Amino acid sequence: MEIKRIKANQRMSQAVVYGGLLTTAGQVAKQTAGGAVSEQAQEILSEIDQLLTDAGTDKTKLLTAQIWLSDINDFSEFNEVWDAWVAPGSSPTRACVESKLVVPALKVEIAVTAAVE
Amino acid sequence: MEIKRIKANQRMSQAVVYGGLLTTAGQVAKQTAGGAVSEQAQEILSEIDQLLTDAGTDKTKLLTAQIWLSDINDFSEFNEVWDAWVAPGSSPTRACVESKLVVPALKVEIAVTAAVE
Amino acid sequence: MEIKRIKANQRMSQAVVYGGLLTTAGQVAKQTAGGAVSEQAQEILSEIDQLLTDAGTDKTKLLTAQIWLSDINDFSEFNEVWDAWVAPGSSPTRACVESKLVVPALKVEIAVTAAVE
Repeated sequence: MEIKRIKANQRMSQAVVYGGLLTTAGQVAKQTAGGAVSEQAQEILSEIDQLLTDAGTDKTKLLTAQIWLSDINDFSEFNEVWDAWVAPGSSPTRACVESKLVVPALKVEIAVTAAVE
Repeated sequence: MEIKRIKANQRMSQAVVYGGLLTTAGQVAKQTAGGAVSEQAQEILSEIDQLLTDAGTDKTKLLTAQIWLSDINDFSEFNEVWDAWVAPGSSPTRACVESKLVVPALKVEIAVTAAVE
Repeated sequence: MEIKRIKANQRMSQAVVYGGLLTTAGQVAKQTAGGAVSEQAQEILSEIDQLLTDAGTDKTKLLTAQIWLSDINDFSEFNEVWDAWVAPGSSPTRACVESKLVVPALKVEIAVTAAVE
């Protein structure tokens, strides 16, 4: 069975598809790094939409999500953006915990898995 | 291939089944929040048993577990409950690290994957 | 479908293979615990190579990696070892965050998934 690697460099692939399953790398903000968690979440979820499209799937096929917040007090602000983004009837499983991220400017990181037909 | 979502709301599903694989959301204590890590672990593992049952599988089919402790010093107390719960001969892979959880009353969060026939 | 458990005890399996997918437990340093993050990473990646071999696969089939650093300031030192280890053209997805590990002597923990033919 073929392994498809998307936006790959020597360190990591931004997404991998294998056996009908897409997994993304942990996505972080680029344009909005340093900004509010809501802005960073918007950017990340747009990037995830793009990765899903690149792999031939979309957010209605989401299976799981792992969310890391650098400050768990951002939970409510993050959830407003998240809840608006999830496709009704297609919410993935989710775990959301606090972990410091690579640089202080990053407030949230998200990795997802999704089905690919 | 069908995606089955269990106990779903707009934010998340408590479990998702796809391609013979069950994934649960990160489970946390509800009745025993604020209590000892051993109590919280008991409640969570019972909830996981229920999710496995809802999906037509059980803990002998566990594949992986991710455990977050809000205080890594609870490691030994947590392991006593965990080791007693795992079905002999069916232990999953495991990673257990420290991360602050959504509210301070929560001392442990657990997500698992399991095979579904 | 058979579940194959590798190096299993009552608490956990070091790897599980199911449905063409290998998942490892979070691997930590044994010989080099207390040493530099680069040493610990080398030992862990050798252990992962061994688990992949035990399961009949290798690092060219890597799909995902989760990396926990107990101090995110070790990010650059860790990446030097990581980038040299990854097989060119076969980089997995990756998420790398800070979480305290089971004992202070441990500076890094890594779990991966890989395809098994």
